[in-house]
Amino acid sequence: MTQPSKKYVVGVDVGGTKLAVGAMPSDGSREIAVRSELTLAAEGADAVVARIGRIINEVIAATMAETGASRDAFLGVGIGSPGPLDRVKGLVITTPNLGWTNFPLRDRVSAEVGLPATLDNDANCATLGEWWVGAAKGARHVVGMTIGTGIGGGLILNGELYHGASDVAGEIGHTTIDSTGRRCKCGNYGCLEAYASGPATAERAREALAGGEPSSLLALCGGDPSNITAQMVYEASKAGDALAYQVVQETARFIGTAIANLLNIFNPEVVVLAGGVVQAGDQLFAPVRAEVRRRAFKPAVDACRIVPGALGGSAGVVGAVATFLAQHPA
Amino acid sequence: MTQPSKKYVVGVDVGGTKLAVGAMPSDGSREIAVRSELTLAAEGADAVVARIGRIINEVIAATMAETGASRDAFLGVGIGSPGPLDRVKGLVITTPNLGWTNFPLRDRVSAEVGLPATLDNDANCATLGEWWVGAAKGARHVVGMTIGTGIGGGLILNGELYHGASDVAGEIGHTTIDSTGRRCKCGNYGCLEAYASGPATAERAREALAGGEPSSLLALCGGDPSNITAQMVYEASKAGDALAYQVVQETARFIGTAIANLLNIFNPEVVVLAGGVVQAGDQLFAPVRAEVRRRAFKPAVDACRIVPGALGGSAGVVGAVATFLAQHPA
Repeated sequence: MTQPSKKYVVGVDVGGTKLAVGAMPSDGSREIAVRSELTLAAEGADAVVARIGRIINEVIAATMAETGASRDAFLGVGIGSPGPLDRVKGLVITTPNLGWTNFPLRDRVSAEVGLPATLDNDANCATLGEWWVGAAKGARHVVGMTIGTGIGGGLILNGELYHGASDVAGEIGHTTIDSTGRRCKCGNYGCLEAYASGPATAERAREALAGGEPSSLLALCGGDPSNITAQMVYEASKAGDALAYQVVQETARFIGTAIANLLNIFNPEVVVLAGGVVQAGDQLFAPVRAEVRRRAFKPAVDACRIVPGALGGSAGVVGAVATFLAQHPA
Repeated sequence: MTQPSKKYVVGVDVGGTKLAVGAMPSDGSREIAVRSELTLAAEGADAVVARIGRIINEVIAATMAETGASRDAFLGVGIGSPGPLDRVKGLVITTPNLGWTNFPLRDRVSAEVGLPATLDNDANCATLGEWWVGAAKGARHVVGMTIGTGIGGGLILNGELYHGASDVAGEIGHTTIDSTGRRCKCGNYGCLEAYASGPATAERAREALAGGEPSSLLALCGGDPSNITAQMVYEASKAGDALAYQVVQETARFIGTAIANLLNIFNPEVVVLAGGVVQAGDQLFAPVRAEVRRRAFKPAVDACRIVPGALGGSAGVVGAVATFLAQHPA
């Protein structure tokens, strides 16, 4: 059935490992045809841009075939990428995982497919996606945290993404929760990311194992603790392993402390947690909420829901569409 | 000389100890006739409201006499008060220092003087005052911190005061910088306020003295450490006292850690510090800036000035005028 009046936007989520691309109607009514391929950044920026362009065209073609839309119905392309970025110029300033420096990703992709494009931080996109059609729909003030290999964040204040003076805003993973604590990759000490990212949770499990306590984690990792992942820790904890349970409780306390700070600073209506951490489920969310109640002001706690993201792995693509629409209303 | 076209707003800063009232032209061009009296909260809310009304009328009369303005030129009254507040209803929800609960301060003052009134948090007012005509003039994104007996905060984002979902936003003093650290009056552990408020700085000096190190502070406090204040610590440090110097450096590191968090979260153009801490001068500001550089992301550091407030004790009155004008443009 044709929907001649509908307009569409393509969202692109550029990751160090994977590219994900999808098209959505500008009214957010549904997600169509998300495709994912390896980024293969080692092949160089030109090859990655060509690959992105090809997948965008495939997604547009598939969407046209499925909906009867014409090519004219596609308004443009929203791109989400790891930062730091210069949004105004459309540059990726540096990304260790992609090896780019001051790369004009927005204009290169735009030229490749002949459509206008926008560029924003991947964590900002994920947060805006959850706000547009996901777990934070309808809220005015939202904090989004993506907890996986790193910890990223996005802020929606007064119904708009907040970027700060030079697009650095929202680096929640790099806020200090223990001023004399663990060294973080960013150079600072005691950052949330150094305690509660996936690799940090795995590292704390390894440290606990080294203490000699018995744990099913040893079997799960095939006897080699260097193989331990945060997912293994969550699994072992769910299955009743005492050591893994303690590690998950600690992760929850660290995340809860950081969220309590954000509640006292921002007083948001919703905090959305996304990334690998969502798979931990209630064994993590329950103690996170308890830690927040213990630390934050009651009116801020009462005003706020702390929820898992609803969009899973497609939050970045959906959010990239939303960031395009925020700059080019349909 | 008469200025018949000018409009005026009265600002009221309600403190636990002192009331301060002043009138300003709505163009912010100058401050006129600030009067200060004791609050005498123990006399009860009715007496305090009557006192506020009398001072407002005195300030209006003095301003009329000085400028030739008519009573019609006075648009209204902005009130700043310790929180938590309900801004929409104009209520002071609770203030331990004033002994009020759900007190309709805004409407009571409005009725007392026959002018419209607004109510906002005192730390928000101070920040807005510095943004309107003080040290943060012209910036889009500003964090204000008032460091005295407590540590309050205000946020100006996209050129507007940010209040959050339930008027709790900006409680910077109650963000955790050491998750297992000192107990704070708010019930949380490791809050900035528990380390870097005036009383906390004095307490750390007492703890250092108890270690037996010699210090000129002992003479300054008349031999009784319970008399030590943060101002004494700043004075002794300026005069070369080694123990006091270390205490001030620690205060700077705590404040710098909290500001670094705010830079990574908000990426503001200006952080304004106000309150008693400003008297410490460069001996405090230099190590605060160094700690921020050590901890925050470089693009956020590069985008931001960290400066003392320019309005001194009148920031609250000026800001109360500004919060009125934000809701009733002249």
